Amino acid sequence: MMISIREVARRAGVSPSTVSRVMNGTANVDPIKRERVLAVIHETGFAPNELARALFKKSSKIIGVIVPNIENAFFGELARVIEEEAYQNQYRILLCNSLNDTKKEILNIQTLNRLHADGIIIMTNSENLAAQIGNCQIPFVILDRKIEGLDEIAFIEADHYKGGRMAMEHLMDCGCKQIVCIRGPQKYSSGQQRFLGYCDVCKEHGLQAQWLDCDYDYEEGLTAAEALLAQYPDVDGILACNDMVAIAVYKILQSRGYRVPEDIQLMGFDNIRFSRLFTPEFSTIVQPIKEMGALAVQIILKYVQEESFEKENLFDVSLIQRQTTRRKAEANEKQ
Amino acid sequence: MMISIREVARRAGVSPSTVSRVMNGTANVDPIKRERVLAVIHETGFAPNELARALFKKSSKIIGVIVPNIENAFFGELARVIEEEAYQNQYRILLCNSLNDTKKEILNIQTLNRLHADGIIIMTNSENLAAQIGNCQIPFVILDRKIEGLDEIAFIEADHYKGGRMAMEHLMDCGCKQIVCIRGPQKYSSGQQRFLGYCDVCKEHGLQAQWLDCDYDYEEGLTAAEALLAQYPDVDGILACNDMVAIAVYKILQSRGYRVPEDIQLMGFDNIRFSRLFTPEFSTIVQPIKEMGALAVQIILKYVQEESFEKENLFDVSLIQRQTTRRKAEANEKQ
Repeated sequence: MMISIREVARRAGVSPSTVSRVMNGTANVDPIKRERVLAVIHETGFAPNELARALFKKSSKIIGVIVPNIENAFFGELARVIEEEAYQNQYRILLCNSLNDTKKEILNIQTLNRLHADGIIIMTNSENLAAQIGNCQIPFVILDRKIEGLDEIAFIEADHYKGGRMAMEHLMDCGCKQIVCIRGPQKYSSGQQRFLGYCDVCKEHGLQAQWLDCDYDYEEGLTAAEALLAQYPDVDGILACNDMVAIAVYKILQSRGYRVPEDIQLMGFDNIRFSRLFTPEFSTIVQPIKEMGALAVQIILKYVQEESFEKENLFDVSLIQRQTTRRKAEANEKQ
Repeated sequence: MMISIREVARRAGVSPSTVSRVMNGTANVDPIKRERVLAVIHETGFAPNELARALFKKSSKIIGVIVPNIENAFFGELARVIEEEAYQNQYRILLCNSLNDTKKEILNIQTLNRLHADGIIIMTNSENLAAQIGNCQIPFVILDRKIEGLDEIAFIEADHYKGGRMAMEHLMDCGCKQIVCIRGPQKYSSGQQRFLGYCDVCKEHGLQAQWLDCDYDYEEGLTAAEALLAQYPDVDGILACNDMVAIAVYKILQSRGYRVPEDIQLMGFDNIRFSRLFTPEFSTIVQPIKEMGALAVQIILKYVQEESFEKENLFDVSLIQRQTTRRKAEANEKQ
């Protein structure tokens, strides 16, 4: 039983544009006419077509979310948190799993542009995105990875440098002598900063930095782990670039007969849910996924409502020790 | 540089409604006028406002996806496949992670209704959804779980009954004598049918069916595993209701000192990605997640294009043996 704006106008004895003005509060309307219109709206349960309203108001209560690869649980969990926070604020999300395909990202941004989305939360690997999106009118919030040249309204990330330091210092506390860093892609601030943290701790203790490169990806992690064992046969501590890679490294270590943490200790990064579900449970660096995702949505809402917010948002990290590392004191107790 | 439909009409020397007719192919247009309009569209790169087009066509190239809980990787993977298939067909998805909240599902369906979405793919736990969505005009495809009273255009599921049978027969082939089924919720066809398959194999072999109840959920799986060991201390084979629960069961078994598969063999269900990433890798029943998700999208496209499709779609399942089970012959070889 859809009723049109024309029908509301007819019943109220006013013009359709008067009904529009009443509904949008955009201009003065004769109070008597306003009363009549509101009465008809109330009686008929008239709900304006959401598309028509979006056209008028240039808003569709939609937030776009672009993730590079939802199979990396870190992004899957961020998307989940964003969806929940958006829902709590009467927003819906349009999800794009870009798979690092810039064309796909562009097409999704075009759709969001045309739908008058109120904002886009971008977590992407595309370095050349900025050059291509051109005159997009929608405000962007960038989460996790800085993209050069994009004119974002805000940037949110965790303190990767501190995380890298903490992970390295923890493995040293655990008595590891040959600690190898599987570093993430150096084109991302996350990969750079974590590695820098590791290197600085090495320097401070007069240790030689030892590393291999790896993407933030399970399959790449398998390959990197094989290479690591070949290149550093004396390794007794491994810093994986994230939890997905730590899961891969564990599989290789176990298949080669290494015990974790007795022979080789292993640190993840992110604290995705599976790092706790796994057996053994992973020691890892905690990124505050829930808080970061919620803030991204909050910033878009504040932008829409013309409220102020911070442009640069750095979240603190922490270390959680579970079963893949063991501090020296604890190891001694066990003996 | 947005150009309006009026401007296109002016340049082509026709009326705006003629431009509309050319673009939508909805009525006959004088071939000469059509040529002129197409030339102007081509020259100017005119892209009609997507919202305006949706209003006209009652379509917005959007598909809604409602999942009960994206933390169950089975649904996360289905959502990912659906998004990819939709993208390949110029569609975008609006994602709702309903967390079994009927109100949230209703609000999302209302948004989709107003956006003139072309279809909704529903995987939900809400039994009372049908009563509440009322006169939704959008076609529904139901994936994985039958919902009574919903007037869906198509239903897609895997052969849960066969999967339940195969899992049980496999554990028997592996030499298990005390096989306990952790059955999923009996209000869902998936839970019912898998359990029925288990029971029928028991009956055929004169075995007593042994079971506990559990939701399709990791946390519930921990509790169920504790209860199972208390209630069935002689258990040597476990059929978990899905892979997430199998991951929980493994953790409990390992913490109690049971070896898998030497002491207790363990079967999952679904073949989520993590069942392979885990160490040990899980033996499980393969649901064809990719094919099921792609078909759901294809059916909506066919419905929109008024092509024919099957209403009931039952996908075959298969068994994949990995490291949590071992056939008797293989066990003997190892000795």
